[in-house]
Amino acid sequence: MKTAFAPASVSNLNCGFDILGLAIDRPGDEITVAFNEEKVIRIVSIKGDNGKLPYATEKNTAGVAVQSLFQHLGEKRGVDISIHKKMPFGSGLGSSAASAVGAVLAANALLDNPLSKKELIPFAIDGEVIASGSRHGDNIVPSLLGGFVLVRSEHDIVELPVPKSMYCTVVHPKVEILTKTARDILPKEVIMSDAIHQSANMGSFVAALYQDDMELLARSMEDYLATPYRKSLMPEFDRVKKAAQYGGAVAFGISGAGPSMFALVIGQSRATQVGELMQKALSSKDIDSTLFVSKVNEQGARIL
Amino acid sequence: MKTAFAPASVSNLNCGFDILGLAIDRPGDEITVAFNEEKVIRIVSIKGDNGKLPYATEKNTAGVAVQSLFQHLGEKRGVDISIHKKMPFGSGLGSSAASAVGAVLAANALLDNPLSKKELIPFAIDGEVIASGSRHGDNIVPSLLGGFVLVRSEHDIVELPVPKSMYCTVVHPKVEILTKTARDILPKEVIMSDAIHQSANMGSFVAALYQDDMELLARSMEDYLATPYRKSLMPEFDRVKKAAQYGGAVAFGISGAGPSMFALVIGQSRATQVGELMQKALSSKDIDSTLFVSKVNEQGARIL
Repeated sequence: MKTAFAPASVSNLNCGFDILGLAIDRPGDEITVAFNEEKVIRIVSIKGDNGKLPYATEKNTAGVAVQSLFQHLGEKRGVDISIHKKMPFGSGLGSSAASAVGAVLAANALLDNPLSKKELIPFAIDGEVIASGSRHGDNIVPSLLGGFVLVRSEHDIVELPVPKSMYCTVVHPKVEILTKTARDILPKEVIMSDAIHQSANMGSFVAALYQDDMELLARSMEDYLATPYRKSLMPEFDRVKKAAQYGGAVAFGISGAGPSMFALVIGQSRATQVGELMQKALSSKDIDSTLFVSKVNEQGARIL
Repeated sequence: MKTAFAPASVSNLNCGFDILGLAIDRPGDEITVAFNEEKVIRIVSIKGDNGKLPYATEKNTAGVAVQSLFQHLGEKRGVDISIHKKMPFGSGLGSSAASAVGAVLAANALLDNPLSKKELIPFAIDGEVIASGSRHGDNIVPSLLGGFVLVRSEHDIVELPVPKSMYCTVVHPKVEILTKTARDILPKEVIMSDAIHQSANMGSFVAALYQDDMELLARSMEDYLATPYRKSLMPEFDRVKKAAQYGGAVAFGISGAGPSMFALVIGQSRATQVGELMQKALSSKDIDSTLFVSKVNEQGARIL
C-alpha cells in the first residue's frame, strides 16, 4: 500500500498564461493505492468531496490516470484507490490535477518506481483530461515536480529556479466561476503589441528568477492575454490587488481560471500579512474566503 | 578628438520579435567627434555611404543623437562629426543604430564620460528615430552594450548571458527590402495560441541562455509573430534555412526586417562553414551575398 500527497498548484502566474505554474505546500490531496485480488482498477473510497466525485473508474481523474499508467506498463494486477480530497473544487488551484498526480505517484511507488516523475506526466494528464476536457500540463507538472515550471508541452518541461524565501499567498473566495465562462471570455485574437509585451514579460520573468531580482520580477508579472478579460469575473479583483500591493506583495494575480487569487511575497510573516489584507478586502464586501500561505513547494508530490 | 566603433546588431532573433537583439563583432561604423571653434554641431565628413546620407545635422542620425545628448547636458560647445560607414544600409543589421551609438559614445568620451553607457541609450534612440521613424531600442541597445539584450523599454533593459563559443553567422543578400514593406506585411492581430507559443519560446530561450542548453535554445528560437509573414519577402528563405541547419546551426532566422539572415552556431569553424552553405544556397539561384562571421560581441561599442 502506498499513499501520496499531491499539492495544489497556481497556474498562469500572469505573464505565463497557459504555460507556467508553481506548486504550493498546502492544500493538497492524499491518494492511497493498494493491490487487490480482483485484477481491476477501482475507486473504493472518496473522502472530503461532499459526494461530488464519481466512483466509476473511467470517469474519475485518479482512476483514469492509474488505468493509463498500468496500460502503458502492461501491468495486469488490480488496485484499490482511496481518495482523500483536502482541497476545494473549482477553486483555480488544480484540484483535479492533484488527484491525478497523487494517483500516478502512489501507483508508480507501489510498482517499485518503474518510471521517473517526469515520465509520469502524460498519464497524470490523461487523468486530468476527464475533468478539464483539455490536455494541459500547467497544473499537473508543478504539482508533480514542484517549483516554478514552464510547460512548453507535456514532453518539454523547463524547471526554473525558486528565489529564496519566496512565499505564495492564496486566497480562495467562496464564489463559483465556471471554467467554461472563464475560457469563453477570452478573445480568439489579440493585438500584436499585446503579444509582444507578453513575450517580453515572460522573458524577463525567467531572467528575474535566475538573477533573484524581485524588482524585475514585479515589473514582469503583468498579463496582457487573460487577466484584462477575466478580472471582471473575479470578486473585487482591483480591491484585493490593491490590498496585496499595500501589504508588500511582489506580484498579484488570478490563480488558474480563478476565483482564487495569489500573491508572491518574500518572507513568511509578510506573506501572512498580505493574505489577511486580501481577506479583509473581500470581507468588507461580505465575501467569505479561505487563506493558504506556504513557501513555494520545491519538492512537488511525495510519498507519505 | 575621440573615435568610437559601434557594431552591427541582429534584432528580433525569432522568438524575441521586437524586443531582443545581439551585437556582432563586424561590420560596424566608426564615428569621430572633435571640438570646433564655431559652437555648432555639424557633420564634416561622411565616407562609405555612396553619397546617400544627409549632411544636415538635424536629418542625420549621428547629428541628432549628439544634439540630443548635448542639449541634455547643457553643453554649449560645438563638435565636428566624421562618419565612416563600414556596413551596408537597409541590410537588417542596424546600420542607422550603429551610427547613432558611435556618435553618442564618442561625444560622451570627448566630454570625459559624464554619462554611463546605459544612460546614453535615450539619446542614441533620439538619433535613430530620424532614420527609422519609430522609437525602438532593439538595435541601439545591443550595439551599445553588447551581448544578448532584452529591451523591455529604453529605460528597462535586461542583459542576458552569452553561451561560450557562440558565433553569429550573417549573410547579407544583395537585394533590397523596404522596412515599410516588411512592417506592412505583419498582421495587426494574432491568434491567441500564437501569442502563447511566442511567450513560451521567449521564456525558454532565456532559460536556455542561463542553463547553456543549446537543444532548448534550438527548440525555443521559433517565431510565431513575424517570420511566418516576412519570410516570403526574403530571398530563398527556406533554402537558406535548410543549408544552415544542414551545416549544424543551432538557430536560423531573419536579421531585423531583413534581407540579412542569421544563424547562431557553436564554434568558429562551423560558423564559417554554415555561412558558406548559406551563401551557396543563394548563389545557386544567382543571388550575390556578403558573409560576416563573428563571435557574439559581449563588449558592444567602444572607443578606439
